[in-house]
Amino acid sequence: MDRRTIGILGGGQLGRMLVEAAHRLNLRTTILDADNSPAKQINALSSHVTGSFSSSADILELSKACDILTTEIEHVDTNILETIEKEGKVDVQPSSQTIRIIQDKYLQKEFLLKNGVAVAESRSIDSPSVEALEKVGADFGYPFMLKSRTLAYDGRGNYVVWSKDTIPQALEALSNRPLYAEKWAAFTMELAVMVVKTRSGKTLSYPTVETIHENNICKLVYMPARTTLSARTRAQKLAEDAIKHFPGAGIFGVEMFLLKNDNILVNEIAPRPHNSGHHTIETHSTSQFEAHIRAIIDLPLPPSITSPRTPSTSSIMLNILGGPQPDSHLPLCKLALETPGSTLHLYGKTEARPGRKMGHITVVADGITNCETLIAPLVRAATYTSPAASILPASLPTPTSPIAVIMGSISDLPIMSAALRTLDNFNIPTQPRIVSAHRMTQELYDFSRTAEERGIRVIIAGAGGAAHLPGMCASMTSLPVIGVPVKGSSLEGMDSLLSIVQMPNGIPVATVGVNRADNAALLAVRILGAGEGRYRDVMRSFMKGMRDSVVLTDDMLLQVGWKKYLEDKEKEKK
Amino acid sequence: MDRRTIGILGGGQLGRMLVEAAHRLNLRTTILDADNSPAKQINALSSHVTGSFSSSADILELSKACDILTTEIEHVDTNILETIEKEGKVDVQPSSQTIRIIQDKYLQKEFLLKNGVAVAESRSIDSPSVEALEKVGADFGYPFMLKSRTLAYDGRGNYVVWSKDTIPQALEALSNRPLYAEKWAAFTMELAVMVVKTRSGKTLSYPTVETIHENNICKLVYMPARTTLSARTRAQKLAEDAIKHFPGAGIFGVEMFLLKNDNILVNEIAPRPHNSGHHTIETHSTSQFEAHIRAIIDLPLPPSITSPRTPSTSSIMLNILGGPQPDSHLPLCKLALETPGSTLHLYGKTEARPGRKMGHITVVADGITNCETLIAPLVRAATYTSPAASILPASLPTPTSPIAVIMGSISDLPIMSAALRTLDNFNIPTQPRIVSAHRMTQELYDFSRTAEERGIRVIIAGAGGAAHLPGMCASMTSLPVIGVPVKGSSLEGMDSLLSIVQMPNGIPVATVGVNRADNAALLAVRILGAGEGRYRDVMRSFMKGMRDSVVLTDDMLLQVGWKKYLEDKEKEKK
Repeated sequence: MDRRTIGILGGGQLGRMLVEAAHRLNLRTTILDADNSPAKQINALSSHVTGSFSSSADILELSKACDILTTEIEHVDTNILETIEKEGKVDVQPSSQTIRIIQDKYLQKEFLLKNGVAVAESRSIDSPSVEALEKVGADFGYPFMLKSRTLAYDGRGNYVVWSKDTIPQALEALSNRPLYAEKWAAFTMELAVMVVKTRSGKTLSYPTVETIHENNICKLVYMPARTTLSARTRAQKLAEDAIKHFPGAGIFGVEMFLLKNDNILVNEIAPRPHNSGHHTIETHSTSQFEAHIRAIIDLPLPPSITSPRTPSTSSIMLNILGGPQPDSHLPLCKLALETPGSTLHLYGKTEARPGRKMGHITVVADGITNCETLIAPLVRAATYTSPAASILPASLPTPTSPIAVIMGSISDLPIMSAALRTLDNFNIPTQPRIVSAHRMTQELYDFSRTAEERGIRVIIAGAGGAAHLPGMCASMTSLPVIGVPVKGSSLEGMDSLLSIVQMPNGIPVATVGVNRADNAALLAVRILGAGEGRYRDVMRSFMKGMRDSVVLTDDMLLQVGWKKYLEDKEKEKK
Repeated sequence: MDRRTIGILGGGQLGRMLVEAAHRLNLRTTILDADNSPAKQINALSSHVTGSFSSSADILELSKACDILTTEIEHVDTNILETIEKEGKVDVQPSSQTIRIIQDKYLQKEFLLKNGVAVAESRSIDSPSVEALEKVGADFGYPFMLKSRTLAYDGRGNYVVWSKDTIPQALEALSNRPLYAEKWAAFTMELAVMVVKTRSGKTLSYPTVETIHENNICKLVYMPARTTLSARTRAQKLAEDAIKHFPGAGIFGVEMFLLKNDNILVNEIAPRPHNSGHHTIETHSTSQFEAHIRAIIDLPLPPSITSPRTPSTSSIMLNILGGPQPDSHLPLCKLALETPGSTLHLYGKTEARPGRKMGHITVVADGITNCETLIAPLVRAATYTSPAASILPASLPTPTSPIAVIMGSISDLPIMSAALRTLDNFNIPTQPRIVSAHRMTQELYDFSRTAEERGIRVIIAGAGGAAHLPGMCASMTSLPVIGVPVKGSSLEGMDSLLSIVQMPNGIPVATVGVNRADNAALLAVRILGAGEGRYRDVMRSFMKGMRDSVVLTDDMLLQVGWKKYLEDKEKEKK
């Protein structure tokens, strides 16, 4: 595809996965790192450079063996990169200027602010002292974050200042480092978006993920993030806005906070592939690694990289960390091999130190709820890294049911409960809501308009009399709505039936029989089955159950005889 | 995971993808092939052996550097493998005996027959002559296949004997080769199943795919095969039955014929990864390559490998062949990079000879119809290999519409046509069928029972009078059924409405208003939207269109004035 050689600063797992992607495109790579580093193990095409990405002499040596220079880590000597850039023989991507801004977190924050990107309020601490930090505490309030401006990753270099009393400890913990303070962001969820910037300056982004950290190290990544479509869309836009100002091409990881007030702030940026994008190897046709390679060498990308391989493709990634023993993580790896939907990636690291990233597991399934079910035993098996840690992340919300049940009045509940009980039997429990079409028009509007983005796929609406609820709801959503005519005090339910079924051209309501809430639930399951085979499977076995039960009755009738059966029935009545 | 080294006979693309899978499990591999062969390029962990998989001395040398010996090709010296096996120091997987049986296609056929596996009738031709083949023609009929027993692949070594007159040409084409004749299999589709056999003898299989050959070389692979669920299930079972008798562990490719009479025959078997399983890298959590590695080294596998990553995950693989010029295939590769859903794999081969497999493209999407749409431009761009070939494979059937429309009588068509027209407007055309519940009970039964496996996801059924069609259809399928009450000559449609809507507990019918076939179609689109976002998108824009049109009417009424509007209307009537 291209005869140029790509030099990579750093040969850890990110470099290794970059090399893997380059191989699939017949592109040549050469690595600067220690001998036998993970990336070098899988590349016999080049001779590589033995050394360190923090040595300018070694970087210079690598630059002589390549046409394009990129990096798997931002903690590199940017002065030598700038010199190489200025010489013009080797193309540095992303530019040394981008890496320089990003590697100093306070410069990064200032750069984003200057470009109108929302970040947490920050202040440089040029002469660290108790007084200086007390001033910050007075202005920002407690807690606030004290952070090292440079060489901070996986939580190292960050300190939470909980109160005035903890200021001396904080200064001690981060002594001899360039510091800045950051206002506490009261977030409900940590989000991340991988953005790729092409050489022509176009940005493309993968879907918003949710990251869960444990001991400041990324532990789990959920794709998509378990929040509203609106928050996910805003996060993608914010991430692309943040990246478009940085010079040069490549992939960028943008970590963000979703705040309690639903606003989103950028936390920090990585100018390279990122742990929150590993799942793209499985979920997307172009992985974050391949996207980086294509962007820096100017090969085409598809028009969008947001959609996963199928609309329902979801994933959870779990990092495999080194534990107390060299092979503490192996039982987790073996369990991953046996787990349906899971793919194991090991990085070829010879020594397993506690907390070291040894590999990762990606579980892919249709819908995040199925991913949660599949990964639960693996998350339990991963507790060797920190036995005290909770088994499941505290933030795990109850999954939204794909079926909503609403009714016009509490008086409809005795009838509508048949739908709820049927859904319980199918293991699709749901919380019913009262939404009166005539007395709660605002709620009806809000419910119907947001149903889709809240993950609802089918709505069951029951109403009696001038039963407008199902039809009005159908008018405000593109989802299928099932109407249950509830029999009122007059007209035997014919009023409800005709109010629901006789909708005008353009807005259908799937109407079931009068008071037949049970059938509404069964229809809802069939509708889910039109998209997902597992619902068809449970419907088939339900139908077989019904058949078997009538066959049994027929057998009984044969054995007992029809006359005796009727006589017995008569006796029961008495 | 395991400290043993796996030796691989052959370092072509199959060996390369085996090495890639082994790397992800931290497993060590060493290769026997020419220097810089595709597999060696991506493995710097071992020193490898320079030589050929057909040389017994070279095989012996490789065996000294590994603990487990496997192969990417069946044309190897099985005598030396047997010697190594008997020495007992190195584990040969699958066993030399399996490779020996499979590499002689006639022995392979005899072995399968002996074990009760259906294959085409065959006869060994021990002394090839015109007379011997005329005897075969008299017994088998024309055409029949004349095949080389050994060293046959990609169609080389096969000859179709169309008539008595072509016998001399056939003998000429396959002179000096050990021959056998095979009865012509009148197949409607070529199927393939990848089967993995574990060391404990358990077999697991990937879903049945459809393979399309051009000039005897595999060109396209469809997952799943575009045939009935029944045929796909029987093919998987036949493939597992065929493999379970072969000694040793590993992956096997089983190529089959689906005959006109719906029977399935095994065509031939490969004791190694196979071109028809390349898509598993994208579609399955465990690829065929990783499954082979795990099976031979006795690492766990998940309980089943049949299901793809999500229920709707489908794929089409397109081989990238060398063309008349060294870079004839590059425009196709670049187009693949721009195509949504497509993933490119290049094999690192330096020389592009015509017809040589240089790489492959896998397109993944939800449902095979979407895959077909995405890959069509790539299939067109692949015509450089054989400009005369047809652009799309001749066997491409019209994709089945996910929505079926049935009605009880031709007299319902004027009403039901509103559903057909609405579906046309949504670009989901469908062929309506007449299925009378009372006069065509067998057809009703067949239609309903097979609807799901024919790819139907929603059924719209219209009927009048004692309108039993929608309810009876719903009783025989787990799919959602929408009922349209058609107004008859009496009772204003109330008879039809109540017959359809008042279904008993257990069998819902989604009933729409009397004669409202248009709404039935819209409801069907909403039901598809419950599973697939693109249908929600089109429904949203349809609803916006409705709103805009009523807003326009309101504007007009404001401008014209209500009195004048009514006066104009009155004038029009006159």
